[in-house]
Amino acid sequence: MLNVIKKQNLSRSLINGLRNVAIREVHTPRRALMYVPSDDKRKLRKSRELEADCIALDLEDGVANNKKDAARQIARAFFDAGSNNPVEGHKESHRRAEWAVRVNSVCSNLCEEDLKTILGGEIKPETILLPKYNETEQLRQFADWVNKALADAEHKINLIFYAESCKAVMRLPELCEYAVQLSQVPGAKFIPVSIVFGSDDFCASAGLTRTEEGKEILYARQRIVTVAKAFDLQAIDMVYTDYTNLEGLKAQAKEGAKFGYTGKQVIHPCQLEIVQKAFVPSSEKVEWASELLKAWDEHEKDGVGAFTFKNKMIDAPTMKQAQNILEIMRSVQ
Amino acid sequence: MLNVIKKQNLSRSLINGLRNVAIREVHTPRRALMYVPSDDKRKLRKSRELEADCIALDLEDGVANNKKDAARQIARAFFDAGSNNPVEGHKESHRRAEWAVRVNSVCSNLCEEDLKTILGGEIKPETILLPKYNETEQLRQFADWVNKALADAEHKINLIFYAESCKAVMRLPELCEYAVQLSQVPGAKFIPVSIVFGSDDFCASAGLTRTEEGKEILYARQRIVTVAKAFDLQAIDMVYTDYTNLEGLKAQAKEGAKFGYTGKQVIHPCQLEIVQKAFVPSSEKVEWASELLKAWDEHEKDGVGAFTFKNKMIDAPTMKQAQNILEIMRSVQ
Amino acid sequence: MLNVIKKQNLSRSLINGLRNVAIREVHTPRRALMYVPSDDKRKLRKSRELEADCIALDLEDGVANNKKDAARQIARAFFDAGSNNPVEGHKESHRRAEWAVRVNSVCSNLCEEDLKTILGGEIKPETILLPKYNETEQLRQFADWVNKALADAEHKINLIFYAESCKAVMRLPELCEYAVQLSQVPGAKFIPVSIVFGSDDFCASAGLTRTEEGKEILYARQRIVTVAKAFDLQAIDMVYTDYTNLEGLKAQAKEGAKFGYTGKQVIHPCQLEIVQKAFVPSSEKVEWASELLKAWDEHEKDGVGAFTFKNKMIDAPTMKQAQNILEIMRSVQ
Repeated sequence: MLNVIKKQNLSRSLINGLRNVAIREVHTPRRALMYVPSDDKRKLRKSRELEADCIALDLEDGVANNKKDAARQIARAFFDAGSNNPVEGHKESHRRAEWAVRVNSVCSNLCEEDLKTILGGEIKPETILLPKYNETEQLRQFADWVNKALADAEHKINLIFYAESCKAVMRLPELCEYAVQLSQVPGAKFIPVSIVFGSDDFCASAGLTRTEEGKEILYARQRIVTVAKAFDLQAIDMVYTDYTNLEGLKAQAKEGAKFGYTGKQVIHPCQLEIVQKAFVPSSEKVEWASELLKAWDEHEKDGVGAFTFKNKMIDAPTMKQAQNILEIMRSVQ
Repeated sequence: MLNVIKKQNLSRSLINGLRNVAIREVHTPRRALMYVPSDDKRKLRKSRELEADCIALDLEDGVANNKKDAARQIARAFFDAGSNNPVEGHKESHRRAEWAVRVNSVCSNLCEEDLKTILGGEIKPETILLPKYNETEQLRQFADWVNKALADAEHKINLIFYAESCKAVMRLPELCEYAVQLSQVPGAKFIPVSIVFGSDDFCASAGLTRTEEGKEILYARQRIVTVAKAFDLQAIDMVYTDYTNLEGLKAQAKEGAKFGYTGKQVIHPCQLEIVQKAFVPSSEKVEWASELLKAWDEHEKDGVGAFTFKNKMIDAPTMKQAQNILEIMRSVQ
Repeated sequence: MLNVIKKQNLSRSLINGLRNVAIREVHTPRRALMYVPSDDKRKLRKSRELEADCIALDLEDGVANNKKDAARQIARAFFDAGSNNPVEGHKESHRRAEWAVRVNSVCSNLCEEDLKTILGGEIKPETILLPKYNETEQLRQFADWVNKALADAEHKINLIFYAESCKAVMRLPELCEYAVQLSQVPGAKFIPVSIVFGSDDFCASAGLTRTEEGKEILYARQRIVTVAKAFDLQAIDMVYTDYTNLEGLKAQAKEGAKFGYTGKQVIHPCQLEIVQKAFVPSSEKVEWASELLKAWDEHEKDGVGAFTFKNKMIDAPTMKQAQNILEIMRSVQ
């Protein structure tokens, strides 16, 4: 199947077909974004065994106010010890996780110290999660701190920020545009890669009442995907807080994937397997996509632009959807 | 229960937890916004007996064009007579209603005269409802008229405006921002407090067909809440026009409350009780919120940032939702 | 029934009632927008027999890359031959279709040549469809080409553009505003009339998975209607690709009409009848609207602004909805 993809990607007809489309770069998969409270050494140690695409040491909402400094120091020690490397002797199939840190928001008076500590050591996380990004000014401040802390660093750090208030959801296009602009200034040391839907803070901000079905949250949830994708950013879906209800989690995760989300926040290890699976295309879809791309290629050679495939009229847009599916598949394998 | 709230609000841990959150001021409750056609003296008189948070003397859509002046004069006489005071001898439990006037839109050529008449007497309404606000220029004009009429007044008047066209829904962030800015100019005599979703005008503008379920109106209905809350304004939900169907009303009112609306328009006294109740949190929710805040406080003391409460993972955002519930409860008691 | 409409429209009370409302001009109906691949002479010939409000010779997604020039030339020959005139001897009831051409996007390097060829002959299409409009700069370029090609033409051409990416959906207000502005510059030779929801390209761009129910696409689908109507543009709904499932098509078409869409894209002749019908108001609705307007007129004479009609409270907004229905009815008859 992967052969099909490679062949398709290189075929001239496809490249022509895509000429006007911004080619979506193959993103680092972030199907599950798993939080671990950074003040809890035991949980941190155990998290190294987990199969999650992205694991975030949390300094923010998961840590009490009187433990903030302890949490920073533990995170620093974690990276100093090289604990973000794969566990030795671990089965080969275990993917190397991306290690991230969720700092406190710019307005918290904690963020600068968080960044100094986290980015001050030799070994650094790959990714910083910035919560409660509501005003462009906050990102300017954040950028100053990060660019200074990483002035001598070779690599840039990934930035994932949170839309978790009515203000942020309303202003999201402006907030994203500013983040992209700031990241392209000479000396910038971060690259925006994803937006997280911070649904619980959003609900508090909107005063809305969550239901299992989620009708009340549809506008925000779909707006965030649309804006994220408009800036070629990933979109990471809301938390499912009831970790005893795995059926509910599964339904919500699958719906998020259908909505275009590329991953989901996870607050308990028992949620991981379901979430990681929900963001992999089903084997039926992968098969459909591979066959469609083969048929597309043949029709293009024959000069046919639109054709019937399994009862449906296929033209370039459907072909691009099939390509998306195979790209996701490739990125998670 | 109220003790719990007071205690919670003062507890240092909570204040710390909320440090980065704009504290939502306790708004005047406006669960039901009840219209009375201002040219109908009998209905006006009867409306004084009603238990509605907010009663609006309507000069606009509920009054025929050849009755506009009569309606103005009746409204003026109503306030001159002090009829906006609680009815004497009325049972104590009866809340004092907020008396408002819905003037005609700025483009109607009626608005300036409406405002002169309504604001020209000794006793004034607390609140003006401005319909069909579609362009910032309209509010500039409105502000000129109001600021002039109230130049010598001690108090500012509350402004509630209507989003009731595709244009208004599309531009709502800009319209709100402008309203807030104008209200902060020295000499400004009004304070924006709420947005009303004028769903029937909106439907005419969008050419859409209303269904009982309301799927067709979801985008506008949720966008309005999101933008309102982004500016710390209340959001008042659409009219349920079939006043013989109280079950339908109840369902729609409860859904509006779940979506984050803080109140609903009412066009018939028989709708009042259902609507006023729908925007009070259920006793189960109030109990949940009180218990959660108690647990939060205890965990904070112990330095625990996230904890399990009734099978769900709780951190600061959920705590804020619980606080919201208790604040609403307090404001309507 | 039509008498009622005419009478209503002229009645002074109604004009007063509408004074503050931008009177919606009676648009050319575009219930079905039917695509025919322009490189397929047989299909083109057959399309002349079809009862579709608007037929688009497609140069874009329905035509393979190595057939683009052939498609242009066939389209040119089609108009040169006057084939856009009604078929002789055809039953009178057959409406004259609007003939349009879908050119390739501005970024394709094909668009300029498309426009030169299509607009270069004596007989021209009435309407150009511009796909993949994502940046204002693209329209500036398009306008240059069109204005030049039509410099000596007497009539302006209609412009229908496509919202078919996350970027376009996000920026739609800005894109529409720019199109309207450019069309008002002296020398401009086009008039924006409709927006098409290009759902398949949009889904590829958002990475979302289509379901029959369409929950995943609700935000974009309703946002597009809202923005279109805010600029007094028509909104043309998404494609239903499975042309063997006519029940599914019918449901989707009717839902689109309820959402405020004025028409729908059609990719197979078998879809035409269902789609054309779905965008005509039902006889029950037309009857309701006519009766309501009669009642409105009588109440206005008596100085009553709001009244009860079939259990519902009626005021100006509902009257405008009734008017909408009768205007649509009139435009398709």
